[in-house]
Amino acid sequence: MMGVLVLGTVALDTVKTPFGWHERMLGGSAAHFSMSARLFTDLSLVAVVGEDFPLEHIAFLRAKGIDLSSLAIKKGKTFHWQGEYKNDLNSAITLKTELGVLADFNPQITIEQSKMKYLFLANVDPDIQFSLLKLMRAPRIVALDSMNYWINTKRKSLLKILKKVDIYVANDQEALSLSQESNILQAARSLNKIGAKMVLIKKGEHGVIFYNGRSFFSLPAYPAERVVDPTGAGDTFAGGFIGYLAMKGKVNDQEIKNALAYGTIAASFNIESFGLEKTAKLKMKDIDTRLIKFKNCVNF
Amino acid sequence: MMGVLVLGTVALDTVKTPFGWHERMLGGSAAHFSMSARLFTDLSLVAVVGEDFPLEHIAFLRAKGIDLSSLAIKKGKTFHWQGEYKNDLNSAITLKTELGVLADFNPQITIEQSKMKYLFLANVDPDIQFSLLKLMRAPRIVALDSMNYWINTKRKSLLKILKKVDIYVANDQEALSLSQESNILQAARSLNKIGAKMVLIKKGEHGVIFYNGRSFFSLPAYPAERVVDPTGAGDTFAGGFIGYLAMKGKVNDQEIKNALAYGTIAASFNIESFGLEKTAKLKMKDIDTRLIKFKNCVNF
Repeated sequence: MMGVLVLGTVALDTVKTPFGWHERMLGGSAAHFSMSARLFTDLSLVAVVGEDFPLEHIAFLRAKGIDLSSLAIKKGKTFHWQGEYKNDLNSAITLKTELGVLADFNPQITIEQSKMKYLFLANVDPDIQFSLLKLMRAPRIVALDSMNYWINTKRKSLLKILKKVDIYVANDQEALSLSQESNILQAARSLNKIGAKMVLIKKGEHGVIFYNGRSFFSLPAYPAERVVDPTGAGDTFAGGFIGYLAMKGKVNDQEIKNALAYGTIAASFNIESFGLEKTAKLKMKDIDTRLIKFKNCVNF
Repeated sequence: MMGVLVLGTVALDTVKTPFGWHERMLGGSAAHFSMSARLFTDLSLVAVVGEDFPLEHIAFLRAKGIDLSSLAIKKGKTFHWQGEYKNDLNSAITLKTELGVLADFNPQITIEQSKMKYLFLANVDPDIQFSLLKLMRAPRIVALDSMNYWINTKRKSLLKILKKVDIYVANDQEALSLSQESNILQAARSLNKIGAKMVLIKKGEHGVIFYNGRSFFSLPAYPAERVVDPTGAGDTFAGGFIGYLAMKGKVNDQEIKNALAYGTIAASFNIESFGLEKTAKLKMKDIDTRLIKFKNCVNF
């Protein structure tokens, strides 16, 4: 079965930015990833929510065509993140993290899902990422995201799973921290030596760098003049990137560069509104229209 | 007469980086600019040096084909800059600035030079930039660079000359500071409204953004794994950029994007060695070879 399986969080996000304040919106890495990946391919989501999770959010995700058969609903509270962006919209200040049911999440998937070929392990405990990876039959592409918290507390687990990963996805700070390098290109090389076949480093407003084990690709961000809420931009990027590769069914240099451009465009919509507001309404033609503008902006 | 006239500094630079320490090397904005622009077109340099300026440097610049008929030699000392880069090779710490003969520089040019079509006013006092601009007959493209010191102390002069400028060249901090915006795209729009027809914002390791008054172009930097000394990278960039445009003799969107790429490649060589070490040896075929690699790295 083609399509993408994503493991991650489905969360309630409370976010304040200079443009406003929204309480307990639908968010989380798997939700943001899905909202862009669904445009390209079939999408199955593996996550856990608590009994307080609003039914309307489930109806909403289902209406977007996302397979929720492995969205577990457990006794307890849904993962809740509260954060604020001040004038520098590139860095979030975390005010509160309530793990709730995420604390002892043990992902289960269907037999059909175990046969899926494209897997995205969004940022959760690397041991949980590993337990899901073991359930997969023969994935063609495994991509993995993490965060500083796990790099600091579960470094060993993370380095172990990295050896099984095709594409390690990180932001610049995480890449430097895990590799202990001071230059992000050297970080990419080093993470490749440690085990990841390919490395994708997200630099927010400064775009992305990709290392395929031999050479680098680099793309700037889409020129964004009004950033309202960047929460989830990285996962939205990953959704466009992996979603495109799954749609194409092949991974070569040219398709990777196209996938980076599609991820860039998906993320550029995400940051224009709070939560999933903008990406939920996106159609493939919106992406394609902006991609042409982007091509004109960066190709010479 | 085609070719480029550059006004700026010819200096002695003392630079320390994690890779070494060099005393009183040939440097300055006009020298760095010339070393890349000379590859594309005829180059005339307007600057002043003191009587302590080593004759070998004059011989060296002349041997590179640079027209020095307006390089003034005055009683006093040559402009001397001393700086250090610590682990963050993106930001220089200025340790000493000795203006010397630069303090009362009154640029004079030949009649031939006053007819040149491409003018680069590198970073000096905006009043000096203005006095040179008034000597020009009918330049086709006037580009101007400045720095935070003049933005803070001669804001009014700078805003006045900006109205006469086709391309304002700045780094991100300078663009934000002069426009008093917090987003660099909005800064570019605002500087365009103030008067500059086009705005080129240099972001160091993160590439460049260009605003032509209607739309944005964006390019990442060339992936550089070993930065030895970034001094002069911005002027080397400008030299490749303006030099290419002068060579082509036309300024349209496609040629501007090509020029940004040539500037990027020229700068990528500059940072690989101290001072002018690398750019002095450059040949056009080195630029073209790396340009093909860069195209493959960024175009999708």
